[in-house]
Amino acid sequence: MQQSLLEKLALSGILQAGLTKARIEALTDGIFATVMTVLVLGLTVPVPNLPESELASQIRGHWPNYLAYAFSFIVLGVYWIGHHNQFHYIKQSDRVFLWVNILFLLTIGFVPFSTSLLGLYPFSPTAVRVYGANLAATGLALYAVWWYATSQHRLVEKDLDPHIVSLAKRRISVGPIVSLLGIGFSFLDTRISLVLYLLLIPFFIRPSHIDIHFREGSHD
Amino acid sequence: MQQSLLEKLALSGILQAGLTKARIEALTDGIFATVMTVLVLGLTVPVPNLPESELASQIRGHWPNYLAYAFSFIVLGVYWIGHHNQFHYIKQSDRVFLWVNILFLLTIGFVPFSTSLLGLYPFSPTAVRVYGANLAATGLALYAVWWYATSQHRLVEKDLDPHIVSLAKRRISVGPIVSLLGIGFSFLDTRISLVLYLLLIPFFIRPSHIDIHFREGSHD
Amino acid sequence: MQQSLLEKLALSGILQAGLTKARIEALTDGIFATVMTVLVLGLTVPVPNLPESELASQIRGHWPNYLAYAFSFIVLGVYWIGHHNQFHYIKQSDRVFLWVNILFLLTIGFVPFSTSLLGLYPFSPTAVRVYGANLAATGLALYAVWWYATSQHRLVEKDLDPHIVSLAKRRISVGPIVSLLGIGFSFLDTRISLVLYLLLIPFFIRPSHIDIHFREGSHD
Amino acid sequence: MQQSLLEKLALSGILQAGLTKARIEALTDGIFATVMTVLVLGLTVPVPNLPESELASQIRGHWPNYLAYAFSFIVLGVYWIGHHNQFHYIKQSDRVFLWVNILFLLTIGFVPFSTSLLGLYPFSPTAVRVYGANLAATGLALYAVWWYATSQHRLVEKDLDPHIVSLAKRRISVGPIVSLLGIGFSFLDTRISLVLYLLLIPFFIRPSHIDIHFREGSHD
Repeated sequence: MQQSLLEKLALSGILQAGLTKARIEALTDGIFATVMTVLVLGLTVPVPNLPESELASQIRGHWPNYLAYAFSFIVLGVYWIGHHNQFHYIKQSDRVFLWVNILFLLTIGFVPFSTSLLGLYPFSPTAVRVYGANLAATGLALYAVWWYATSQHRLVEKDLDPHIVSLAKRRISVGPIVSLLGIGFSFLDTRISLVLYLLLIPFFIRPSHIDIHFREGSHD
Repeated sequence: MQQSLLEKLALSGILQAGLTKARIEALTDGIFATVMTVLVLGLTVPVPNLPESELASQIRGHWPNYLAYAFSFIVLGVYWIGHHNQFHYIKQSDRVFLWVNILFLLTIGFVPFSTSLLGLYPFSPTAVRVYGANLAATGLALYAVWWYATSQHRLVEKDLDPHIVSLAKRRISVGPIVSLLGIGFSFLDTRISLVLYLLLIPFFIRPSHIDIHFREGSHD
Repeated sequence: MQQSLLEKLALSGILQAGLTKARIEALTDGIFATVMTVLVLGLTVPVPNLPESELASQIRGHWPNYLAYAFSFIVLGVYWIGHHNQFHYIKQSDRVFLWVNILFLLTIGFVPFSTSLLGLYPFSPTAVRVYGANLAATGLALYAVWWYATSQHRLVEKDLDPHIVSLAKRRISVGPIVSLLGIGFSFLDTRISLVLYLLLIPFFIRPSHIDIHFREGSHD
Repeated sequence: MQQSLLEKLALSGILQAGLTKARIEALTDGIFATVMTVLVLGLTVPVPNLPESELASQIRGHWPNYLAYAFSFIVLGVYWIGHHNQFHYIKQSDRVFLWVNILFLLTIGFVPFSTSLLGLYPFSPTAVRVYGANLAATGLALYAVWWYATSQHRLVEKDLDPHIVSLAKRRISVGPIVSLLGIGFSFLDTRISLVLYLLLIPFFIRPSHIDIHFREGSHD
């Protein structure tokens, strides 16, 4: 009885028919735009009425904050691109998938906190670990999104090339692996961790053969 | 005279023809994305220049804040999904409906405040009650949206199955009921209230028979 | 020479062909959603580690803040609806129109500041005047948007009924007039000003004959 | 082997086929809307319980903050319009272009910080230089977006008039040049810098022959 109602409800799609991937993308874009903006609130504005020399020295002294701001902004750019690339292949949605995405957004939403912490304490093991844990969680959540959508071709087209699936997996897993290595090295020297995090940027944004091919492909 | 002008105005739709459900959804998505992001601003970043051990202990000591952040993020996800599910069935809008929605968004917009309060005072009766009241108000407003749209098939299709209407009502009403119970138990022991709130999550996100049916339905 | 280049540029539309009303609406929706959310940051979260009775009394003592939050949220809803209603009739855009709209958004963006001030100092003449000036500026800017678009049918259809134009003008002008009255009465007693501001809400959201006609109109 | 996989990946577009200019525009609009709103958080709300005269004098004393808020809001409007005008001509996207845009957004996201600093220290050489550097970086990034898209007609139509390209370049370059001049003059007198910055506004928003031509063009 109750069961048949639930079936009817399910078939008529009350639970998520309206939540197509377009909606998830809209929420994702909105959250990324806000998170990227909110990062700036982690920068400490000096108190009023300082003498000029003191103001200048404070502004200069906050360089780790500016660096952390720029680094996180670019990392968010990387994950925004990564998420959209995945959604290019994903054609459907279901309830579990929706929640894996919300989990991913939860880790994205945490970035302003860990960025602010790292900007204040750039060489502190605690801050480096919190930041690394955030990066790792974000990467793992993105991996989970891809894994869930592609395993058994659950939400992608049946003829999606398995090589693309595994190549994307390898690419995504670099983020969490490097972040976890960074957390590990923080017990030795946090500067090693920071260098590892920084190396993620050229890895993810490097121009490569791929671009050339892509551009040729899209011109034809 | 004045009346006939008002009629003309009404017929030409100045008052809300342009405010289709698409517009309400756009504002809703924007507010949800921002609220989910702004939650993170409720986390206290430690003051600068603490010694490492003190920093680590403060970061660890703030676990209720992180938990409150994650909990509210997921609850907002629940209500975002709930709102969209409703809009799948709602085909029209009118002035009263618009304002019931804005009231719903008002309660959503309050969540960062009550979350921040609960994170700072996880076992305080006051904080538990403010948080519960916010949850209850959000749930009641969502109930009002659904009730207003569906009673006498006001804004939904004439042939919408009444079972779906009442099943959705029952589902939505669980939130306010549990929240009000939580407020009640806060006079005994706030830990009971917190457990009640936490139980809402598995209730709302559980994978169930519904998903299987839905997925089958959407594949065919 | 330079001139002919400018002409070419103008004709090819570099300066705003791409800035259709849809774009202005997107920015407007984004700013409204963010402003409505950012309002909550004006609520003071109590400092940590207060005793329960002190916490409860502080939370209760902040009632003017909650009221100011709710009031501004609803006022923003009013202006969001008002702006969209105008855009229902507006078919084109030009450079001046664009900037009048940005001016309108500037006054909207200021609302969290004046709300926060009024919440902290609900009966202070200064706070009441700042809030009233913000309300008046917002209303005047919305009036300017409508005036610029409709005078000489500049950006609306040639056959738009002039009665609609003037009725909308009268409706919009109520906001600034009441706000300026509120500022005036603040020199006598700020409670009169506050009552005047509060009366704006029922004026703007009241259900009226209009809704009935509208609903009938849209059903046919 | 690996190479051929990368080719396959590239051709199937995993890296950015999904990231059309529409997506970049959505993120851009979201970030602009949020940044324009977040500016207001840089205004200092007075502490509670000041006597009325003290409150009034503080509110009046913060005029540089209000001015900085309004100035930055309008400058952001200028750059939002400028970005959209460019995207009217840009038809394609590639990986490098995407990152140049994210760099542009990074400089936009920094504006609330430099605005808040300038509002607190309107005549300080440090604040004037930070603000000028931000303006210059924003302008240069927008120049880079245009340069990258148009050089060798990389991402625009083959028949785009080169006069339009160079005229737009000249227009965009005014921002960085004036900002760098402002930084230079800050070593003499910061008031000269501020006047230079202020002059950017009439330059960018002035109604001109262009509008008349444009409007005629769009009416026909």
